This record gives sequence, C-alpha cells and structure tokens, in this order.
Amino acid sequence: MSEPGATRGPSVRGVPEGDNRERMICADCGFVLYDNPKIVVGSVPRWGERILLCRRAINPRRGFWTLPAGYLELNESTSAGAEREAWEEAQARIQIEGLLAIYDIPRISQVQLIYRARLVDEAVAAGPESLEVALFRWDEIPWDEIAFPSVRWALNHDREARASGDFTARVAPPTDPAAPQRE
Amino acid sequence: MSEPGATRGPSVRGVPEGDNRERMICADCGFVLYDNPKIVVGSVPRWGERILLCRRAINPRRGFWTLPAGYLELNESTSAGAEREAWEEAQARIQIEGLLAIYDIPRISQVQLIYRARLVDEAVAAGPESLEVALFRWDEIPWDEIAFPSVRWALNHDREARASGDFTARVAPPTDPAAPQRE
Repeated sequence: MSEPGATRGPSVRGVPEGDNRERMICADCGFVLYDNPKIVVGSVPRWGERILLCRRAINPRRGFWTLPAGYLELNESTSAGAEREAWEEAQARIQIEGLLAIYDIPRISQVQLIYRARLVDEAVAAGPESLEVALFRWDEIPWDEIAFPSVRWALNHDREARASGDFTARVAPPTDPAAPQRE
Repeated sequence: MSEPGATRGPSVRGVPEGDNRERMICADCGFVLYDNPKIVVGSVPRWGERILLCRRAINPRRGFWTLPAGYLELNESTSAGAEREAWEEAQARIQIEGLLAIYDIPRISQVQLIYRARLVDEAVAAGPESLEVALFRWDEIPWDEIAFPSVRWALNHDREARASGDFTARVAPPTDPAAPQRE
C-alpha cells in the first residue's frame, strides 16, 4: 500500500499472465502499464525558398533551432498533429503536401513522422514554447545551433526531395553520433 | 485504497498540475497515465506476383484474412517491427523495400505504418495468431473475407505504386464506411 500522498504507480517489473514480455506493474493496485513507443509529428514548412524554424524556449536544447514538431495526441491524425504543432510553436498555418520522412529512434522508443508543408501565409510568431521564430533561406540556416540531428536530416531530405522530384519517404541515416534527442 | 486483489489503476479523470488536458489518474497512488496513440507496423510481402496473407486465429475478425501487422514494441524500429510481425504471424522472412503508406485512424488513436516488402524465400507457415497463411495472385485474393479496411487499402496501394513507379507514401481514403478495425 502506498503512503498517503505518495506517487508510485507502476514501478514493479514482471510478466503479466498471458503475456510474454516484462511490463511495469503497480504494487498498490495491480494495474499493468502497457507502455508504447511515442509518435512525434512535425513538418518542414516552406514559404517560397525560405523555411520556418523555431528557437526553443524549453529544455531539452533551449535556445537551439528546431522545426515545429511534438507528440501526437489521442484521437488526432498525424497531419492534424503536424498542423497543430506549427500553430502552437510558431502561430503558423500550414498546408500539408505529403510525408517527407519517417525517423525511427528506437533507443528512446520514438517514431518521428515529418511532413512536407507550405505556409499558408507569411505571418508567423513565437508561441509559448519558442523564444523566436524565423524564415531562413538555405544558406542562412544556423547549422551550428540546430537542436536535434533529426532536424538536420529533415532539412536535407526536404531539399533533396524537392530537387529530385522523388518523394519516397526518407529514413534516418544509418548511423549518427550519439547526439541530443528530443525527450 | 484498493481492496486486496482489486485491479483499478488510473480510473479517475482529471487535469494534472502543469498540464492542459484531462488524463486518467490512479485514485490509489496518484499515478498519471499519459496515454498515447499506438503504432501498428506491417507489410505487404510479395513473392513474385503473389502476396502473403494470414487468416486470423484471434479476435477481432477471427477467420478473416489480413496482412502481417501488429503493435510496435518499445525500443524497436518500425521496419524491425514489420519484420517481426511477418515472422510471428507467418514464419516469413521479409526484406523491407520502403514505406508504402501511413494510415491514420484517429477514432481509435492508431497510426498504421505499412511497408512494401519482398519475401526472402517462399517458405511460410502459420504462427500462433494465424489459422493458415497463403500466397495469393491478385485475382485470387479473398476480397469478401478481408479482416480490415486498411488491408484492402494496402493491397490496392501496393499494386498501384508498383504499376506507377511512384512510391510517395499513401494515406487512407478520405472516407470509409464504419467497418471493423484492429483493436
């Protein structure tokens, strides 16, 4: 039994009856936590030749630049989630064009789904999770201040897909140095 | 406090401190369940012009035909998950070719990622979740006994992608009659 006010939740490791993998179980009430990989949805929003980036106001990687992206919510489609994140982080209205890439990050049980997108208008503004937002031409992108490897992947994949006209979904490069990841 | 042996878990609805959405909370220990959309990974495995299907041994839709697919596990890449499901359901070894489609089913908070794939060899056999498995030519597919709408979508998208040579990731048709879905 828990102490009054204690917050423990599923904290005991065990294989539930009828299952074949270890799960976290609550010692208080027997609840089994079927934890699942999480989905991050985002976009590479373009306005002509410029790309929208957001400077993070929150950790991890506060002060670094990122594409608008975040966790998919329940009962939300992935494209609607990408649109919501563009709005929340950059007050940007976007039009989804198609899936650019699927980045598996199994180390942290994360799947990122990144869409190609156009800004509907040029009006963008920092949302609560951004210090500032801006539109960058390719040679203006602050490559040394990019928050996550997957942001670099998406920027390069978007450029390459548009140049080639081949919109097959891209995947993460085979290896990438252990670098900061979204949490 | 829970009765001895009772299994309740997070069963009270409320907005946790610092959050902006309702979550399920455990009345016993205060654990907050951050429930997330689930990822189903699968494939359309081909052996020449024939496609591998599995007749389901479990509910929902026991006795109906499906493509090998199932929930992505923690610390698993989506392509590895699709390979695992082909093995578990049809003892099939597959080689992933690329992402065929992303099917959003927000009503049940599910995202399906379906890959194009080749069978590495013709040896397939029913796994514990299949009554039987078989390779079908297009005109042999048991269309009236398909388990889920997304199986029909994937079969048609795979055929159309291969015919056109355009491998842009497909999405679900705009509307589909309320029909049985994976759970």
